[in-house]
Amino acid sequence: MRGFSQSITYLRESPTRRIDAIRERLKRESRDIINLSAGQPGLPPPIEVRSLLAKQLVEENSMELYGYTPSQGILELREAVSEDLKRLGGINIDPGNIVIITGGQEGMFATFMTILNPGDEVILLDPTYFGYKPIIEYFGGRIKRLGLRMDDGFRIDIEKLKELVTNRTKALVIVSPDNPTGNIIDRDTAKAIADLARDENFWIISDEAYRTLIYEGEHTYMYRYAPDNVISINTFSKDPGIPGWRLGFIYGPSDAIPKLKLAAEEMTYCPPVIAQKFVSMYLRSEARMKHMRYIVEEYRSRRDAAIESLRNYLPEARFIVPRGSMFVFADLSNYISNSEKFAEVLLEKFGVTVIPGTYFSDIYKSAIRISFVVENADRIRLGIKRIHDAINEYGKSL
Amino acid sequence: MRGFSQSITYLRESPTRRIDAIRERLKRESRDIINLSAGQPGLPPPIEVRSLLAKQLVEENSMELYGYTPSQGILELREAVSEDLKRLGGINIDPGNIVIITGGQEGMFATFMTILNPGDEVILLDPTYFGYKPIIEYFGGRIKRLGLRMDDGFRIDIEKLKELVTNRTKALVIVSPDNPTGNIIDRDTAKAIADLARDENFWIISDEAYRTLIYEGEHTYMYRYAPDNVISINTFSKDPGIPGWRLGFIYGPSDAIPKLKLAAEEMTYCPPVIAQKFVSMYLRSEARMKHMRYIVEEYRSRRDAAIESLRNYLPEARFIVPRGSMFVFADLSNYISNSEKFAEVLLEKFGVTVIPGTYFSDIYKSAIRISFVVENADRIRLGIKRIHDAINEYGKSL
Repeated sequence: MRGFSQSITYLRESPTRRIDAIRERLKRESRDIINLSAGQPGLPPPIEVRSLLAKQLVEENSMELYGYTPSQGILELREAVSEDLKRLGGINIDPGNIVIITGGQEGMFATFMTILNPGDEVILLDPTYFGYKPIIEYFGGRIKRLGLRMDDGFRIDIEKLKELVTNRTKALVIVSPDNPTGNIIDRDTAKAIADLARDENFWIISDEAYRTLIYEGEHTYMYRYAPDNVISINTFSKDPGIPGWRLGFIYGPSDAIPKLKLAAEEMTYCPPVIAQKFVSMYLRSEARMKHMRYIVEEYRSRRDAAIESLRNYLPEARFIVPRGSMFVFADLSNYISNSEKFAEVLLEKFGVTVIPGTYFSDIYKSAIRISFVVENADRIRLGIKRIHDAINEYGKSL
Repeated sequence: MRGFSQSITYLRESPTRRIDAIRERLKRESRDIINLSAGQPGLPPPIEVRSLLAKQLVEENSMELYGYTPSQGILELREAVSEDLKRLGGINIDPGNIVIITGGQEGMFATFMTILNPGDEVILLDPTYFGYKPIIEYFGGRIKRLGLRMDDGFRIDIEKLKELVTNRTKALVIVSPDNPTGNIIDRDTAKAIADLARDENFWIISDEAYRTLIYEGEHTYMYRYAPDNVISINTFSKDPGIPGWRLGFIYGPSDAIPKLKLAAEEMTYCPPVIAQKFVSMYLRSEARMKHMRYIVEEYRSRRDAAIESLRNYLPEARFIVPRGSMFVFADLSNYISNSEKFAEVLLEKFGVTVIPGTYFSDIYKSAIRISFVVENADRIRLGIKRIHDAINEYGKSL
């Protein structure tokens, strides 16, 4: 019978994709759109490394730059990643425990493909990145939500977490630095979660996509506290800034690695070789630390512009100052009630894209996620002024 | 409970991967290995287009070359693919019915993810490409095999096919030009299969990875005969020769496209932008027809070298002369019985890699698949001479 899978109905178009589509339409109408929605860096990868790759493209006539690679990724890159984790985080991850993946999205899909059986429970924080829900549901997982309080700095209350754990708990997802809040998990909380994961025998899926985008404090490597329970998902989309090239890496305990590798191999056979070569050169070049510092400085000043503008234009907005990642998660409940309707009006009438809080949360329905990495500081200010204007004109009705 | 998915156990390392691993080891021991196993072109993509991309890499400072693309792929590439299908095949596929994918492997995975429910039956030919079985089993499909006879030119017997069709038949997989046999499905058979698929209401999964590698005759576009029942899987790995860049495309009827797009989006978010830009330029450049003719001429002469050597060195080998794709599927049952053991001995003692017939077939257990695209004609001849030597020395015992 020609027809379709039942399970595929769990999948929905990513909400950012829907906003992208409207934005593209308005762009074709030559509208000036301020992009405060995308989780995509505005700064290109470093020119030094791009030039090296360009040279290889012209000169390389063997299949070295064009052919398949091992499905786990080339050894050179896995070694470079291992060194990078050692240098930045002081953790020792054997290259054999690293699987190069075709972007963080593949990492998420392969991870749940590897661990979930139907009926397994997965604990998600609220708010959290919207990409996890459809994948978990697709694989038959049941989601339990742990609500976090902004007043409390989105801190994880371990006692409340314990109440959610059952003998069906398969995993807890931690995104730190966080999307959408910019929060960084502190060491004590990380340790307490690690103890619980070991005692109760569940996985910690540690999404570290933003690990090098830290504005204050430092990144907490969950691996340090529960090496046998952590599967860490990482991407090169944000640093060096090649989201469209689709490359990232996972690391985890030795019993998980062959399975993660097989899952990724079945999905895409191997990660893109040209991106693997590029990032291998990047991580081992002088450009690596330089570029990382450069983007952190630049994004910090953009974050500061966003924070200052929010305080000026929207004094009753509630948010925490993000210490990492790319976003401010601003609760506008003193101004509006329906963030989805607001985001639509804001885009159609004021030419500013943001992501509604409902995509991340069942609690923060009047919040919006503001990205501060796509546009420069002036345009971020202008965008937040337009949010103010939109509230002034339509706030009461939304 | 920290632990793993039951379903993941259906996945096995690709057999070519296992051979790759042994080959890598022997290479490190500085052994000269003749590669007659890989389905990977030996000719790099055209330098004209590589130079254009290299220039963009140095000059492009916006995120145009580095950022995410629509998950269905950039419109420019979908339009170029549509034009290419029109030019080469005379078929009209709307760019809206094309989904750019992260390589043919993702196309296969996304397709069965989209159509299969547990218990659905899928008909595979025997022999056929070994990549389908694990994916179908992973999604809970049940495989029925239609044995093909080499004597009969691997023709599909429609009456025997009908006997396998039940009300649980979800799909039939056709690979043409074929991997491993190099056969091309003829028009009459294609029409008869199309009629059956419409009458019995099942999908035809048409794997057209090798559609531009035709040495005699022409490619049969299954779409022409059953447009509403065909999902066509295609790759840019073979032409223009960028297997490691992971890019391909699917096309299919309008009700399938949103689902295929969502499946691919959930797996990898979007296809690699740098590969999309590259192939957009390639398909619309003068290099396109020139490169295609060049690789066809080159691979034809290598095929002829393989055929001639087989006739010289192994006169009792049985095979059909491949009219397309990259392989000769040679039945060595007059010489050996166990192709897996033979392939191991051949590699370890004689330094030649081939793929055992058992990976493609329950019938042709004494066959081997010989790739003629990786090595040049002289080395293909040398490789086949070494196969002869291996048979002489070990044939009786294997």
